[in-house]
Amino acid sequence: MPYELYYWPSIQGRGEFIRLALEEAGAKYTDVARSSSGMPKMMRLMQDRGSTTPPYAPPFLKSGKLIIAQTANILLYLGPRLDLAPKVEGGRLWAHQLQLTIADFVKEAHDTHHPVSSGLYFEQQKKEAKQAAALFLKDRAPKYFGYFEHLLSRKGARYLIGARITYPDLSLFQIVAGMNYAFPNAMKKLMRTHPNVVALAGRVADRPRIKSYLASERRISFNEDGIFRHYPELDPT
Amino acid sequence: MPYELYYWPSIQGRGEFIRLALEEAGAKYTDVARSSSGMPKMMRLMQDRGSTTPPYAPPFLKSGKLIIAQTANILLYLGPRLDLAPKVEGGRLWAHQLQLTIADFVKEAHDTHHPVSSGLYFEQQKKEAKQAAALFLKDRAPKYFGYFEHLLSRKGARYLIGARITYPDLSLFQIVAGMNYAFPNAMKKLMRTHPNVVALAGRVADRPRIKSYLASERRISFNEDGIFRHYPELDPT
Repeated sequence: MPYELYYWPSIQGRGEFIRLALEEAGAKYTDVARSSSGMPKMMRLMQDRGSTTPPYAPPFLKSGKLIIAQTANILLYLGPRLDLAPKVEGGRLWAHQLQLTIADFVKEAHDTHHPVSSGLYFEQQKKEAKQAAALFLKDRAPKYFGYFEHLLSRKGARYLIGARITYPDLSLFQIVAGMNYAFPNAMKKLMRTHPNVVALAGRVADRPRIKSYLASERRISFNEDGIFRHYPELDPT
Repeated sequence: MPYELYYWPSIQGRGEFIRLALEEAGAKYTDVARSSSGMPKMMRLMQDRGSTTPPYAPPFLKSGKLIIAQTANILLYLGPRLDLAPKVEGGRLWAHQLQLTIADFVKEAHDTHHPVSSGLYFEQQKKEAKQAAALFLKDRAPKYFGYFEHLLSRKGARYLIGARITYPDLSLFQIVAGMNYAFPNAMKKLMRTHPNVVALAGRVADRPRIKSYLASERRISFNEDGIFRHYPELDPT
């Protein structure tokens, strides 16, 4: 039975981390909310008061009878099934730990344009966003990138966990792509100082199924409704 | 071999979610950084460039040869071992999904006092914090609490996952305790409108081992260095 992914149809957002895993594995899946009448179906599932495991928010995955929410949790489930996770428990926990650290980065990157509240428009918090983005780019992004750079500079570290690709590699590619979209100026320096992170992102982008996915219409373009938004005022030259 | 928990010694913070699970289970553990020479030991482990699974940040747990970081990941590992998680895969994913939703709440609650940046002092972002806290209390906290209230209002839901306690119950207790400390005024209303959440928190607090833990010196007091901070200006009457 194909997997059913439920996520907002017009953004990459958090759903993209799931899409990349499904695409890399060549798994059969439907991106439900992007099909006709998919959005009402997603909303019905979300509001189903009788569901035993209701999601707090998208993305969620339907796999047989299971409904699983929270991006990292979905990848925890999919990892072994898509052959994108280590086989032993210690390795799976390590992959999940990396994914949760990426999730923390994603939240911080998002909050640069919505520091005060996700309930206000960007224009209502632009001044604070400028300050938040500047500090994020100065302190936080280099700290996270430095962490991954260290992991990737270890001997034999073609991917984050040794020689084989796992799901956190796909997610690391995605945050590099997102940062390049949102902060092209700041990323010039970050890319120079983190060559192994850049090389990893390149290796992921070159994998045949990912390459084909990125060139397809299934890959939604970055835009200013997603996590990574390009607001020139947040990325001065 | 006893578990070794590594976390900042002077705050509840994210480490508290682990402490509560270990305490409820009556597990043997050392809270390493709170022992003499524990802090240097924690810093050495964190900065060990040779570690195969280095944490990005505390908390982390040492269990035999494994070093596991990220709060929810540690609970994923401990859950079955402490008999605080369902036995089947679907149940474990559901417990983890709830924990990750609680982690999202924790981050949002923290950011009320540091909306612009964790790298600035509260005093440098007090104006923004007032606005952030007001919107968090008006929109976000009720949305999360409403979600858990719905789960706990289902038939037979003595705990979040049916009749038996699991680790997300302990974490839900902790966020209720934290919110009562940080926002006593706003919580008066939230407690009234979410009676099942309040009852769950009470049931957890009344469990013999938790009761004894909360009364012990092992329970660090809430303070203004942690996640939940009481700043009267963020909780107007």
